[in-house]
Amino acid sequence: MSSGRLEAFSDGVIAVLITIMVLELRPPEGSTFNDLREAHLIPQLLVYLLSFVYLAIYWNNHHHLLQVVERINGAVLWANMHLLFWLSLFPFTTAWMAEKGNPGHTAPVATYGIVQLGAGAAYFVLTRALLSVHSIDSQLAQALGRDWKGKLSVVGYMVGIAIAFVAPYVALGVYVAVAVVWLVPDRRIERVTPNDA
Amino acid sequence: MSSGRLEAFSDGVIAVLITIMVLELRPPEGSTFNDLREAHLIPQLLVYLLSFVYLAIYWNNHHHLLQVVERINGAVLWANMHLLFWLSLFPFTTAWMAEKGNPGHTAPVATYGIVQLGAGAAYFVLTRALLSVHSIDSQLAQALGRDWKGKLSVVGYMVGIAIAFVAPYVALGVYVAVAVVWLVPDRRIERVTPNDA
Amino acid sequence: MSSGRLEAFSDGVIAVLITIMVLELRPPEGSTFNDLREAHLIPQLLVYLLSFVYLAIYWNNHHHLLQVVERINGAVLWANMHLLFWLSLFPFTTAWMAEKGNPGHTAPVATYGIVQLGAGAAYFVLTRALLSVHSIDSQLAQALGRDWKGKLSVVGYMVGIAIAFVAPYVALGVYVAVAVVWLVPDRRIERVTPNDA
Amino acid sequence: MSSGRLEAFSDGVIAVLITIMVLELRPPEGSTFNDLREAHLIPQLLVYLLSFVYLAIYWNNHHHLLQVVERINGAVLWANMHLLFWLSLFPFTTAWMAEKGNPGHTAPVATYGIVQLGAGAAYFVLTRALLSVHSIDSQLAQALGRDWKGKLSVVGYMVGIAIAFVAPYVALGVYVAVAVVWLVPDRRIERVTPNDA
Repeated sequence: MSSGRLEAFSDGVIAVLITIMVLELRPPEGSTFNDLREAHLIPQLLVYLLSFVYLAIYWNNHHHLLQVVERINGAVLWANMHLLFWLSLFPFTTAWMAEKGNPGHTAPVATYGIVQLGAGAAYFVLTRALLSVHSIDSQLAQALGRDWKGKLSVVGYMVGIAIAFVAPYVALGVYVAVAVVWLVPDRRIERVTPNDA
Repeated sequence: MSSGRLEAFSDGVIAVLITIMVLELRPPEGSTFNDLREAHLIPQLLVYLLSFVYLAIYWNNHHHLLQVVERINGAVLWANMHLLFWLSLFPFTTAWMAEKGNPGHTAPVATYGIVQLGAGAAYFVLTRALLSVHSIDSQLAQALGRDWKGKLSVVGYMVGIAIAFVAPYVALGVYVAVAVVWLVPDRRIERVTPNDA
Repeated sequence: MSSGRLEAFSDGVIAVLITIMVLELRPPEGSTFNDLREAHLIPQLLVYLLSFVYLAIYWNNHHHLLQVVERINGAVLWANMHLLFWLSLFPFTTAWMAEKGNPGHTAPVATYGIVQLGAGAAYFVLTRALLSVHSIDSQLAQALGRDWKGKLSVVGYMVGIAIAFVAPYVALGVYVAVAVVWLVPDRRIERVTPNDA
Repeated sequence: MSSGRLEAFSDGVIAVLITIMVLELRPPEGSTFNDLREAHLIPQLLVYLLSFVYLAIYWNNHHHLLQVVERINGAVLWANMHLLFWLSLFPFTTAWMAEKGNPGHTAPVATYGIVQLGAGAAYFVLTRALLSVHSIDSQLAQALGRDWKGKLSVVGYMVGIAIAFVAPYVALGVYVAVAVVWLVPDRRIERVTPNDA
């Protein structure tokens, strides 16, 4: 099986998610800048920006990953669906955390982290499913290497969830830090990509 | 006619459906874990998960099916649209069954089964429309074989609908059982796929 | 310019439209079949089905049309956008006509026809824009021929709009009749398509 | 890296945006033309049309731009995501400006311009990111040339934002004027496109 439709379907789901999430930002009732401020739009926008960046990171990594994939199988299709399920919960956790423009509550912040943890773990499972149909000296195997970023993220989410019970804003800072680590593009895969004349 | 755009359009519709359905999960009013529990989010999430898995199964089977298709015609385009129409009703039946976090009512559970039955029948019709433009020794004909899973599902949905009138939760169990049968990937087609080096 | 992305973008827009429109069907408040009946779901569903079929017809025709297109230019891109704009109004007119499950009012039925007229005219303009970059003996020119269906539809919508002011249900019948005419697949183009082994 | 998935993902996001934005047009409560008029649907429709045209322009320019792109890298992926983020705010600013059918207020009109400015600047950044991976005599470099339209738009948005504080309707006129400038297709790139037999 080639990976063409897997990529197209994943692109579709992530494109819908990233777009629709921002649609939850509702314009204020009134027509002044003060109405905008009182509707807590700025903190809400920041929460949405964080989730936008996370989804962009997942798309970017997925894009890089699939570039070096030579073949897929049924297990890969399901591992990918599993990842998409966790990603599809992002709008829910984002909306709960953004509501009322105050992300400083334990339950929404911890739930946000739990869904991040699920997505991070699902991405890891997807890479293992892919490795199982590639040889040890494949571009994919080389590109993934020790995958310290993936492992670090999972640890980061777990730490963030724990911290959410004592200091939600600090937990939020941990999530931001994990995103920043990923913003550095995945040079491992970019380096070995062949169609990069 | 080649099947490229048929696949792209179907991917688009299913990607939108699978994403938007989960968006119906609304965050609770309050900001505590207790608010989450009182909003019956867990049973709702399970209902959505069932529909997510069903849509994922349809996409997976569609993907496998189209892999061995050599040509399509106008009848196939309409058979595919017919399938997409039934799938597009999933968010409606899912939302009705999930509402109030209590899927134990006859009408929503039976309606859910009726739409499943429509989708299952439409998928069967699509395979017949495809077979009519392929020879008897084509990969498609070999791959579909006796299609016992498709037939079993249709029977399963009918049994589920009947049971919904006496024991809605048992009917729900039947729907889950049908999904589980499909979760085993469609080895028939995977086996004969040529571009699986 | 090749037409690859034009097709992909149009697929995306129509896939979102066809899916989201059906999402306007809201589950009833209660959990019985009686609640379903009292929420006028059946007439609503029929109105949505009509719009679903119309969008499916546009996608099918667009698909057939683009199959024989050899090249496009900037004017074609804008003619296509113009078509998509009219199509994007379908959910609005559908929702207005479906509301309260009673499509028997002049204003919604006439507005529905006006948007259909706009879309029909835009499709005609698109075919002219395409013809202007193809030779007179191209497959496209042969396939479009005299385009009696396109012209008949435009007349049908105009008749329907006029009738809506005296008998809305009859106007609705005219719209259904136009859709039925199109349900017969566009054999003109299918016949000349080359990649139909 | 080739640009295939970048184009597919951008197509997906813009297709969802352009479609969903128009969905904000809600049918009036009543069923007469008078209800339509009292719901201020016409001014609302015009505001949506402006945003539709803007998104269509971005898609068209993106399409033309990517046609002459030979390669991309990680920076281009992020520059593209940055552009999509600004575009994803269009439904928010459009809805605020369209609300109550009266776009004559400073705050919504200025905010609309700020998001336009962000998108215009992001598009400029994307072209620079692309130029940095192309040689000075590439088709891309030739096609972009001095990019006076891109620069003029950014100035136009800034002028519009300033004017919004004294005469919102005039600012709106400036936004319309910028859109009109872009409606002339980007002949620079069309001229050099090779696959235009």
